Amino acid sequence: MRLTDYTDYTMRVLMYCAAHPDRLVTVNELAQEHGISRHHLTKIVTDLGRQGLLQTVRGRGGGMRLSVDPARIRVADVVRTTETDFRLVECFDARSNRCPLTPTCRLKGLLESAMDAYFEVLEGRTLADLVAPDAAKRGAARAPDAAAPIPVRSARTTRPTPLQPRARRSQAERADA
Amino acid sequence: MRLTDYTDYTMRVLMYCAAHPDRLVTVNELAQEHGISRHHLTKIVTDLGRQGLLQTVRGRGGGMRLSVDPARIRVADVVRTTETDFRLVECFDARSNRCPLTPTCRLKGLLESAMDAYFEVLEGRTLADLVAPDAAKRGAARAPDAAAPIPVRSARTTRPTPLQPRARRSQAERADA
Repeated sequence: MRLTDYTDYTMRVLMYCAAHPDRLVTVNELAQEHGISRHHLTKIVTDLGRQGLLQTVRGRGGGMRLSVDPARIRVADVVRTTETDFRLVECFDARSNRCPLTPTCRLKGLLESAMDAYFEVLEGRTLADLVAPDAAKRGAARAPDAAAPIPVRSARTTRPTPLQPRARRSQAERADA
Repeated sequence: MRLTDYTDYTMRVLMYCAAHPDRLVTVNELAQEHGISRHHLTKIVTDLGRQGLLQTVRGRGGGMRLSVDPARIRVADVVRTTETDFRLVECFDARSNRCPLTPTCRLKGLLESAMDAYFEVLEGRTLADLVAPDAAKRGAARAPDAAAPIPVRSARTTRPTPLQPRARRSQAERADA
């Protein structure tokens, strides 16, 4: 039981930007600091841009910043968006399920309750709660005042695993050149 | 985020035996009913035997049965034994972790709390809670009277994923011939 690398890296991009609210962050910098390929990061940055969580600036001196106050980005929303495979056991997938125990089995309901409890813990926390207090307090550059958490829209370009390089250079990648 | 096939199949073997407490269950029967290879099942049955949860009977007419009352087998213990990879994000593995956010990051603690909440739901349930009331009520053949849940000992022969066929025929496999 583990989260995908896509979720791990997405959280790191968001947290790194939240921890550096006073300047633009580059894909090269993220790649170097975290030891993650630029291709993977570019895909994630593009997805986060489409979700409205990141703003990218092109050209020399360009990069990315959070476009939303970190106190409005709920961890549960991010994880729900990045994790797509919650098939805990076979019967979660009605199409392929052939388990003969299904009619009388209560395992599925139990695992669903456990998963609900898992997300209930994440519901109460935002990106601002995850980074150092000083950095979080300053908030995202150009972000509106903190208000109700914003829903994270699913805008992933493809399925998250395995991470695939994009054929064309994205806006974020150009900004980083 | 999903459980391994090893966990899925282990739960099915236990639940199937719990649902058929009045007779011996064979590996062939499990393989046919669930569409799982005999090799995988044999490995799981061997592991469950070593953990003291299954009893196997050799020879013609042989098979397996629960050796413990299903009301004493806690779901949380089984899942903790069968799932070995709880590396939710990179920093869960101290050896390979190189995330520069670690000193100020609170994501690891949050995910650990969420995982605790997940298992708290499973803690309260036993194998008897998962199968049909009638079958569970009858209990396992030759099982002692229900008492405090027994701890499930880890006795896996190898890592669970991918499931590997065993080189030698196990007691359970011979019993099934």
